[in-house]
Order: sequence, then C-alpha cells, then structure tokens
Amino acid sequence: MTTKDNLLLYLKKNKNSWISGEYLSQELLVSRAAVNKHIRKLRDHGYQISSSTKKGYCFYGVKDIFIAAEIQEDLDTRIFGKQEIIYFDEVDSTNAQARLMAAQGAPEGTLVLAEKQISGKGRKGRTWFSPPGYGIYASLILRPAMPPSDVPGITLITAIAAAESLSALTKLPVKIKWPNDILVNKNKLAGILTEISTDMDAVDYIIVGIGLNVNTPSEAFPEHVKSIATSVFAESGMTLSRVKLLRAFLRQYEACYIQFKREGFAGLRRRWKNMTDIIGKNVTIEEIDTTRAGRVVDVDNDGTLVLRDDTGRMHRIFSGDVIL
Amino acid sequence: MTTKDNLLLYLKKNKNSWISGEYLSQELLVSRAAVNKHIRKLRDHGYQISSSTKKGYCFYGVKDIFIAAEIQEDLDTRIFGKQEIIYFDEVDSTNAQARLMAAQGAPEGTLVLAEKQISGKGRKGRTWFSPPGYGIYASLILRPAMPPSDVPGITLITAIAAAESLSALTKLPVKIKWPNDILVNKNKLAGILTEISTDMDAVDYIIVGIGLNVNTPSEAFPEHVKSIATSVFAESGMTLSRVKLLRAFLRQYEACYIQFKREGFAGLRRRWKNMTDIIGKNVTIEEIDTTRAGRVVDVDNDGTLVLRDDTGRMHRIFSGDVIL
Repeated sequence: MTTKDNLLLYLKKNKNSWISGEYLSQELLVSRAAVNKHIRKLRDHGYQISSSTKKGYCFYGVKDIFIAAEIQEDLDTRIFGKQEIIYFDEVDSTNAQARLMAAQGAPEGTLVLAEKQISGKGRKGRTWFSPPGYGIYASLILRPAMPPSDVPGITLITAIAAAESLSALTKLPVKIKWPNDILVNKNKLAGILTEISTDMDAVDYIIVGIGLNVNTPSEAFPEHVKSIATSVFAESGMTLSRVKLLRAFLRQYEACYIQFKREGFAGLRRRWKNMTDIIGKNVTIEEIDTTRAGRVVDVDNDGTLVLRDDTGRMHRIFSGDVIL
Repeated sequence: MTTKDNLLLYLKKNKNSWISGEYLSQELLVSRAAVNKHIRKLRDHGYQISSSTKKGYCFYGVKDIFIAAEIQEDLDTRIFGKQEIIYFDEVDSTNAQARLMAAQGAPEGTLVLAEKQISGKGRKGRTWFSPPGYGIYASLILRPAMPPSDVPGITLITAIAAAESLSALTKLPVKIKWPNDILVNKNKLAGILTEISTDMDAVDYIIVGIGLNVNTPSEAFPEHVKSIATSVFAESGMTLSRVKLLRAFLRQYEACYIQFKREGFAGLRRRWKNMTDIIGKNVTIEEIDTTRAGRVVDVDNDGTLVLRDDTGRMHRIFSGDVIL
C-alpha cells in the first residue's frame, strides 16, 4: 500500500468528520507537508476533501472517477479488473495501449482505462468520440486457449454483457445491433472493437475495447456524431455512475466469458437474441468485398448472421456492417 | 548508395583482376584507410577479396551469404524482398522481429532474415532448430486487404511456393503435409509459421515465417531432431545456394500471393494437391481440443481438410496436427 492509499483508508474510516494533519502525519510516518501533498493529489483525482488550518481534513465523498482503487472496491469478479488497472487521464486509444501491454506479456484481466481518448478507435478505421468526464473508454486483455475461428463470438458476448448491464441499470430499451453496436432508439450508446494476435492454431491475446456514452449531454456531441450517437443521460435525463456501470459490466462480462469458454456461443445465443431486434428485419450488409441485401433469418450457434436474399438464397455472414 | 555498395560495384566490375587502393580511394572520394576498412567489412560478410600491398585488391567471389544486396541482385519480384531487407547475424526469432517491425508500420514485402535463430519458433510453441551457415530463416510482412477468415489459405500458398521452388531446384520428392510442413521422405525439410494481427473485419498484418534446412549435414541436427528433420544436403548430397533458393522461393511466392488475392485458394488448389500425398491417407488429427482419426478425403476450396471418420461422418478441419 502506498502512503496515498493508506491516507485514503484513514479518510474513509472518518468520512464526514475532521481528522487532524498532526494525527495523520504520525500514523503514516510522513511529514505534515507530505500529508498535504497527498491530499492535493487525491483532490485532483476527484476525492472531495475539505481542509481547515484548525481542524485538519474532512473527507465527504468522491466524484465519479476512474481510479483503480475505486473500481476494484466492491468489484466481485475473479479476473476481469482484478489484475492491474492502467489508468490514463488522456490516451491515444485504450486498445492501442492494451495491445502494447499484451505484447509485453500482461495477463488476462488487465484493464486499460482512460478519462479521454484522443483517437478512440471504432471498426474499419472509424473514430469513437471520447470526451472527458462523460464516458467509459476501456480495453480488456483476454488470453483464452481457443482457435482464432472462435473469436468472433467474443464480440457477441461482450455485447450481451454491455446490453444486459445497461438495461438493468437504466431500464432503457437497449438493443444489440450485430455484430458490435449497442443502440437505444437506433442511436449508438456503445461500441465494441475486438482485435487479436494469433497464429493459425491458437490465440495469443485478444483486446476487447468498449466505448460507452454514459453522461454525455446531446449538445456535447459534434455535429456529425449527433445524428447517430446517444448516451444514457441524453435518453433518460439520468446521471449514471460510471464506476457502478463499469463494475456491473465487468461482472456480467466475466460470467459470459466463462460460460462462452465452456459452451461456445451456442450457450449464450438465446440471451443474445433476447437483446436484439434485428431478426426478421430487411437489411443491407456491407462486407469487405461485397454488399448484400436481404432479410435477417437468424444468428447461428457460431455467431454468424444468416441472411436470405431476394432470390431465397441463404448467406452466412462472418463480418460486416448492417444497414437497417 | 553507401560507400560500401559503391566499392562492391567497382570490385565486381573488375572481378578476378587487381585494382589499386589508390584508384578506389580517388574514385570513391574516401581515404585509403576507409577503403581498407570497408574491404574488411565485406570480407566479414563473406566476400572473398585478396589484398596485396603492391597490387591492391582482387575480388574473386562471394560465399553463400544473406546480404540484402546479394539477394536483391537479380531478384525479379515486385514487392517481396523489394522493400527493406533486415538482416541479423543472430536473432531471437525472425517472426518476433518482423512482428515488431509490422507493429511499427513496416510495409508489405519487408523481409527479415537471420543467419542464426536462438529461439526459432514452430507452431504451438515448438522450436525450429536454426544453426548458422546452413539454413534459411526468413519472415515476410504481408498486408492484404482480406478478412481474417481467409488467412489460413496464406499458409497453404506459402507451402506451394516452398515445395515448388525446392522441387524445381533439387529434384527431390518434396511433399506438402497439411497445413504447414514440407517433407522429403517423411522428414521435415521446411516449416511455416503464420501469425496475424487483425480485427474482426480486416487483417492488419500477417507475418509468414519460413525455416528451410538447406545445407545442414545430418550430424549437425541434435539427437531429438535427427529422426524427424532433414535437409537438401542430407537428402541429395548437393550443396544448394541459399541465396538462389531464397530468390526462387520469393518469386514463386509472390506469384502465388497475387493469384490468391484474386482467386482465393480455389485458384491454387490443384497446384497444392499436386504437391501433397496426404489425400486418401489414414491419419490422426490433433486439434486444439479434440483428436480425430479418419481418412483424408480432400482439401477444400477454402483450404480446410476434409476427413471421413470410421462411422462415415465428414469433418472439416480448420487447423491441427496431422499424424500419419
């Protein structure tokens, strides 16, 4: 435990009451000046602490912040978020940082978080608008013993965990759009970007990045994003604790992941279908080298989208953009 | 052109005849000492150069070495080996170095070569015995616009190019063993390791590593390798120029790659089947989570192995180890 962590423990034990600098200095075996320095740092991180030259310090709460200690407190997972949590005030992209860490051997469950992404990534080189203060921008490192052909299912179960935890905490009509978007009223609430490093036999590591628009006010979205994106706050008027949502998501996600490794996507398919309204819809699907129109018949046991075109022919789609 | 490259041009133009240090110094606009230093470096690299205080220098040949300039001379490809060639006297693994370079943006066609690998990699964490002086240890960076599901075909076309070029230059009965080995008389002559970095839509980069036992004498193989590995020299008694073989392989490989991008594996399937004797064989296949026995019926248009088990049931195998 660092001095800062220890100081935090004392402050939290005495929440809403005054505790003298002299006492803290003696207990923590550091100078009064050091105590004061750490108090300032905690304030920078969002801890709300009053100070008085006579009475000392009084901790009365914490803003909704992404300090590892805050997230790990009460987090009842076994792996996800239980390894190192790497936090950035500002970062290029959490996926890029997570890839770097995974390449250097970071274990499964390592979580990269940022308050702000400068170049947040979506699929196909798109950007994910990632302003500070409002969103969850997180990337998780996974190392399942699985062939690369099973990995598309990881995106789908991430979507289940995101949709179910959002739905439980907000009661919004959250829907999964195959393969990687979470929508409310046809607008994007969250997106998932799965990247892998693998040989032909077995995956080395998977990076699952998620961007979640939590408390973003509509007017904060830039013009070109406004018509396609939304947030929990924009839809419900409700401010939701990002820490609480991230914890709920990690818990749900870990459970899905464990089940997926045991049963494959087949075991989670029903839950996925409960969270989507894409089945039966007429859509156009842009694949890497072709575009197909048709009706979505199903999502298969291996996570592929089954499409019937106008001539009645069936197509199994592994990856693509669905245009409703 | 560096001074060394220029010097090499002068020497080669005057192959087998003497050329004075004074003359070289004037032509290259460097000191006599600098000429001498570069001559020493060229010798270190395998250039055979005599020197005489009276007559100067005489270039009379080159050992079979992996200098970029040697390989690129007369290499009639358009991309493969035409970008940077990174050469190591000794390296952990050429694939590891190529991955590092690809992550930093190295273009398609970049080639990593080593005279010796300390921890040459095979599939499934196996090692590839990589002693200096005898083998080709090379990794190529590819950046095709293709979904990750098409990548297994890359291993197969690499095998075609390796088997065809080996067969043409050695007349040995070279056979492909699905998916990634090149055998002569059931022993490994070459192996291929394909690694990819990708998202679910499109490949970022592919590293194709190849290890080729060219001039390795049987007695140079360690005991545990001796019973499964062989070399061109061990099979034929013939010493084959590694530079010549590498050039032939790169030419053949690039042609296969261009065709594969246009037609898929379907367009190269017949050539693949011409180089294998696995069809119709009774085999056991170890997949990541299961083992199956049966008869190999075919290799499909997408490169999957089709196996009929004892009950007559057909299985499509994406990846695994074939045990004959």
